[in-house]
Amino acid sequence: MAIVTILDVIRTKRDGAALSDEQIRWFIEQFTARTIADEQAASLLMAIVWRGLDARELATWTAAMIESGDRLDLSAVGRPTVDKHSTGGVGDKVSLPLCPLVAACGVAVPQLSGRGLGHTGGTLDKLESITGWHGDMSNDAFIAQLRDVGTTIAAAGPRLAPADRRMYALRDVTGTVEAIPLIASSIMSKKIAEGADGLVLDVKIGSGAFLPGIDRARELARTMVGLGEAHGVSTVAVLTDMDQPLGRAVGNALEVAESIEILAGGGPPDVVEVTLALAREMVALAGVDIDPAERLADGSAMDHWRRMIAAQGGDPDAALPRSTEIHTVRAAAPGHVARIDARKVGEAAWRLGAGRARKEDPVSPIAGAVLRAVAGDRVAAGDPVIDLHLDDPTRLPAALEALAEAVTITDEAPAPRRMVHERITRDDLGGGPA
Amino acid sequence: MAIVTILDVIRTKRDGAALSDEQIRWFIEQFTARTIADEQAASLLMAIVWRGLDARELATWTAAMIESGDRLDLSAVGRPTVDKHSTGGVGDKVSLPLCPLVAACGVAVPQLSGRGLGHTGGTLDKLESITGWHGDMSNDAFIAQLRDVGTTIAAAGPRLAPADRRMYALRDVTGTVEAIPLIASSIMSKKIAEGADGLVLDVKIGSGAFLPGIDRARELARTMVGLGEAHGVSTVAVLTDMDQPLGRAVGNALEVAESIEILAGGGPPDVVEVTLALAREMVALAGVDIDPAERLADGSAMDHWRRMIAAQGGDPDAALPRSTEIHTVRAAAPGHVARIDARKVGEAAWRLGAGRARKEDPVSPIAGAVLRAVAGDRVAAGDPVIDLHLDDPTRLPAALEALAEAVTITDEAPAPRRMVHERITRDDLGGGPA
Repeated sequence: MAIVTILDVIRTKRDGAALSDEQIRWFIEQFTARTIADEQAASLLMAIVWRGLDARELATWTAAMIESGDRLDLSAVGRPTVDKHSTGGVGDKVSLPLCPLVAACGVAVPQLSGRGLGHTGGTLDKLESITGWHGDMSNDAFIAQLRDVGTTIAAAGPRLAPADRRMYALRDVTGTVEAIPLIASSIMSKKIAEGADGLVLDVKIGSGAFLPGIDRARELARTMVGLGEAHGVSTVAVLTDMDQPLGRAVGNALEVAESIEILAGGGPPDVVEVTLALAREMVALAGVDIDPAERLADGSAMDHWRRMIAAQGGDPDAALPRSTEIHTVRAAAPGHVARIDARKVGEAAWRLGAGRARKEDPVSPIAGAVLRAVAGDRVAAGDPVIDLHLDDPTRLPAALEALAEAVTITDEAPAPRRMVHERITRDDLGGGPA
Repeated sequence: MAIVTILDVIRTKRDGAALSDEQIRWFIEQFTARTIADEQAASLLMAIVWRGLDARELATWTAAMIESGDRLDLSAVGRPTVDKHSTGGVGDKVSLPLCPLVAACGVAVPQLSGRGLGHTGGTLDKLESITGWHGDMSNDAFIAQLRDVGTTIAAAGPRLAPADRRMYALRDVTGTVEAIPLIASSIMSKKIAEGADGLVLDVKIGSGAFLPGIDRARELARTMVGLGEAHGVSTVAVLTDMDQPLGRAVGNALEVAESIEILAGGGPPDVVEVTLALAREMVALAGVDIDPAERLADGSAMDHWRRMIAAQGGDPDAALPRSTEIHTVRAAAPGHVARIDARKVGEAAWRLGAGRARKEDPVSPIAGAVLRAVAGDRVAAGDPVIDLHLDDPTRLPAALEALAEAVTITDEAPAPRRMVHERITRDDLGGGPA
């Protein structure tokens, strides 16, 4: 019979067979329309965690997610459009300097972003620590700003892959987040629906990453590159280090301040390196022959930042909120700082209020952590290593607990940290003639 | 931390580890109290279908299911108590003659039963085709009848393993029914909570069985015997044939009529064989040295049947409802009837109205099928093979569709049908010294 039922779909996947395109499209459509019960969808999602989705199933699944909403038409922007996605990390403020930097190279950056959940921050949360700035806008306003300013960082609206919005909320409470096909289709359905010509994926590895191990991160990267290319979006993935925090600042306003340092030509070298590496990929995807480092040096990236902030109601000259109460974590022994664990610092900042446990929770603009020493620095016993910026001092004990064993101090100097590990393009996907 | 959360429980099982006793007890308790969302429970159930439960987890899971309600105390019955459970089949009316037969041997049979769902019938549905008969009673009335009459077949009340009641409803809609640990704990939690000293399990194999293949049926049988023994219930399992319907009648009143034939000393030999095999196991478990065949022959089984029906409001002499409209399916070719597919006959009867698709649906007392020929019979082309008893003639086309290729006719006579395939007792579970 041609009638699809949710029980047939669940049993097909449970028993290890591939779902038909008809079954997948029916499921995504009915799920979005809320005519499938959450318990039935959850059961199917766990069966997918178990059995996976093959390439054809994943392509159909992702296409159906995109088609659950609208795909933006950016043709009115009048120049190449390339976006970046990061799988999320601790201190990962790269979007803030990157979007205006790439815009300054003549490539428009249409970034629809989200809020943070758990130990990694969200770009919208960070920008909202700037007085007056807001990320809510219509599609028309989004496109108009892209044309006029060259970049927009806005909140994803309800018509962008609504199937994913509902599915992510369900995965979050049912232990079905950590499945590569589900992660890849969630990210790529939203990014493809954004309408950009090109996409650079920053896939993090290390303790602070969503998928810490390089093997699964690589598999995710390859899966996403394949999905992007299948939908006509030129896609490149870069595997970068998230074993230690990116830069020195972790927390909303703290990260904005560090981003402004980078745009002013300074900032911690690790963030600058990752920002430039991603910017070069984005510019190259657009076919533009400019070295982004020049646009940092000549002030045009900063100029685009100021215009972007102002266009979205923010005052680029307003002072950022700051904590008046700082607790300093000091070195227990002398030596070389060998490693500062990204996940532990991220959890500490989260527990101080920089992030949220539930999506309804507010975040503190000022809470967070600043690394006073980083890997490679020499410290004496008692030297400051991490400053905790407090909003609510009752949260300090939980943050200190999260930081237990976060800092590794050794006698020997550590090997230099490598920020960019691998680069994955369509040419790496194989499948072509030998 | 000692705090158990549903996400931890889901992730533990999803990642292939064993759940702690604390996690299992917490889950069953919270699930019964409805403080766990159905989508979270469904996700865990699918993870259990995937990863299984080891012996210790299953024992704790089943104990927690029993403890979610009350375990009956049958000590007031004053004689040994042994029940039977069947995994369900087409034409499986065995409980009807079996319970009074075993009671006639001096062994009390406390049977809490359910209604049918899908292609297999339910004992309560069958008995309700007797005018006035009802299966709803208090625990006190249940025990009083056991003492006075020797057997009671009643509806399981809300305090019998309530966790299972809720869980079965969820499994039914989420594709998580077919997992041996979940099946075993569902059946055994209810049967152990009944409070009987002994239990005989009739595990069906063949096309009409819930688990058609012998390997999985045997695994289920062994698992259930182990659970029964672990809870102090002497348990024996018998694997019996359900590749063809049991007896000739399939349908509610039709099966009551056939049961009365058996109690009167007649009836189809296959049902009589299974009924006596199970009765002998039950009597042996109780340590009673009587051959049940004598109690069939001397009329005392029929006497107990009449008393049981009357004690529950039924009139044992009332005429059973009958269909006035019968459609006969005839042999397409001459030869030997080699096989009549149990599942197809069960589906045909179900589509005629003998069973229900949803648990709220009513069932027809009169709809069903009667085999006019069975395996081993010689037929000429055009001879009647199956009579369909109609309640609602508009359902006939669907029933005929279900019966396509149900009857196999061959030139050679088939091998005789073997009704009892295997017997599994505690001694077969291994684990002892070599």
